[in-house]
Amino acid sequence: MTQQKSTNITWHEGDISRTERWDALTTSGATLWFTGLSGSGKSTVACALEQALIHRGVFSYRLDGDNVRHGLNKNLGFSAEDRAENIRRIGEVAKLFADAGVVALSSFISPYRADRDAVRALHADDGLAFIEVFVDAPLEVCESRDVKGLYKKARAGEIKGFTGIDDPYEAPGSAEITLRTGDQSVAESVEQMLAYLDSKGLARAGAGA
Amino acid sequence: MTQQKSTNITWHEGDISRTERWDALTTSGATLWFTGLSGSGKSTVACALEQALIHRGVFSYRLDGDNVRHGLNKNLGFSAEDRAENIRRIGEVAKLFADAGVVALSSFISPYRADRDAVRALHADDGLAFIEVFVDAPLEVCESRDVKGLYKKARAGEIKGFTGIDDPYEAPGSAEITLRTGDQSVAESVEQMLAYLDSKGLARAGAGA
Repeated sequence: MTQQKSTNITWHEGDISRTERWDALTTSGATLWFTGLSGSGKSTVACALEQALIHRGVFSYRLDGDNVRHGLNKNLGFSAEDRAENIRRIGEVAKLFADAGVVALSSFISPYRADRDAVRALHADDGLAFIEVFVDAPLEVCESRDVKGLYKKARAGEIKGFTGIDDPYEAPGSAEITLRTGDQSVAESVEQMLAYLDSKGLARAGAGA
Repeated sequence: MTQQKSTNITWHEGDISRTERWDALTTSGATLWFTGLSGSGKSTVACALEQALIHRGVFSYRLDGDNVRHGLNKNLGFSAEDRAENIRRIGEVAKLFADAGVVALSSFISPYRADRDAVRALHADDGLAFIEVFVDAPLEVCESRDVKGLYKKARAGEIKGFTGIDDPYEAPGSAEITLRTGDQSVAESVEQMLAYLDSKGLARAGAGA
C-alpha cells in the first residue's frame, strides 16, 4: 500500500461538521412535520412532495406508519405513554435525517401540541429547521372520505380514543405551512410547500441534478 | 393557480419505489455495520470513511453513541434487554437510511452475534445490503490504548459487564470486511472499505459530484 494510493481520500481527525457535510453534498437537511386528522391527506401530500423533491435531485425521505410502526416502533402500543414515545422516536429519527442533509417528511396524526413542540425544540436546540405542516381539512370532509372505514368504526364505538371523535386533535397555533386540503388540490399543496422551501433556501438539489 | 404552474412537478399515486428513488438520486443505500472491542478503532475508521464518502459526493451518515445514546435511545440502560433493544433500534434506523439511499455507518461494539444477525436479517428481508465490518484489533492492543480509561476501570471492577473483560465479545464468523486495525493504518482501512464498496457498485456519487 503506497502513500500515493491514498491521495484521493480526504479526512481529518474528529467528526465532520454539518457545514462541511452539507456543502460537500450541496444539500440542506430539514424536517417537515405533517400533522392533521386521519383522512386529511397527510400521506397523499407528503408522498407527492417526496416524489417532486426526489425528481429534483433532493434527498428526501418519508417516515410514516408503514415504515415506522412495523419497524422501529413495533414494540409500542396505543397507550398515552406509548403514543408519546412513538412521536418522540420519530422526532429523533427525523432529526438524524435532517442532520444527514436529507429532507425528512414525518406523516403522522400527532394530535398533541406538547409532543410536536417537543420535537420542534429538539430540532431548534440543534440548529435544525423544523417546519410544521398543518394538513387542515374539516372533520366532516375527513369523515366523509373515510378511506379506511375508521371513522365509521369509531362512531360505532369499535375503536376507542380515535382522534377527532373521542380523542382531541390539538391544531397547531402557528404552523409554518397550512394546507387547506379540503379545498385545494394535491398539486396546489405541493406548489405551496416547494415555494416555502425555496424561499428558505431549503430543498437544494445536488449540482448534477 | 394555473395548471401550467404544475408542469415541473412529477409524481404519481402511491409510494415511490426504491429503484425510482435511487435512480433519480444516482445513489445506492447500504448499511455498514462496524463491530469490535472498545478501542479497536470503530469510530475512527467509520468517521474517516464517512468523510471520504461525503467528499466523493456520496450521502453517508454515521450512527454512534454520540447521536443515538443521547437521543433516540436515551431511555435505554445497560440491562441485557436494553442492550438488545439498543441494537434493534439502531438496526431499524440504519435500514431506513439505507432505504433512503444513504450509506449508513453503524459504529457500536455490538458484541452479540444474535443481535447483529437479527439486523442482517432485517436488511436481507427488505433486499438491502448489510455489510458487517469486523474491526479486529487484539484485546491487548485495545487495552493498551485505553483512550477513555475504561479497561482500567473494568479491570479494577469499577465497571461491570465490560466487553472483553467480564462480558464476551462474539467475533463475526463471516464478516464481509475485516480490518486488522492493530496493524494497518486508518488510510489503509478506508482504502479497503472503498475498494469493497466500489466492487459492489455501492457508494455511487451523484452525477454532479
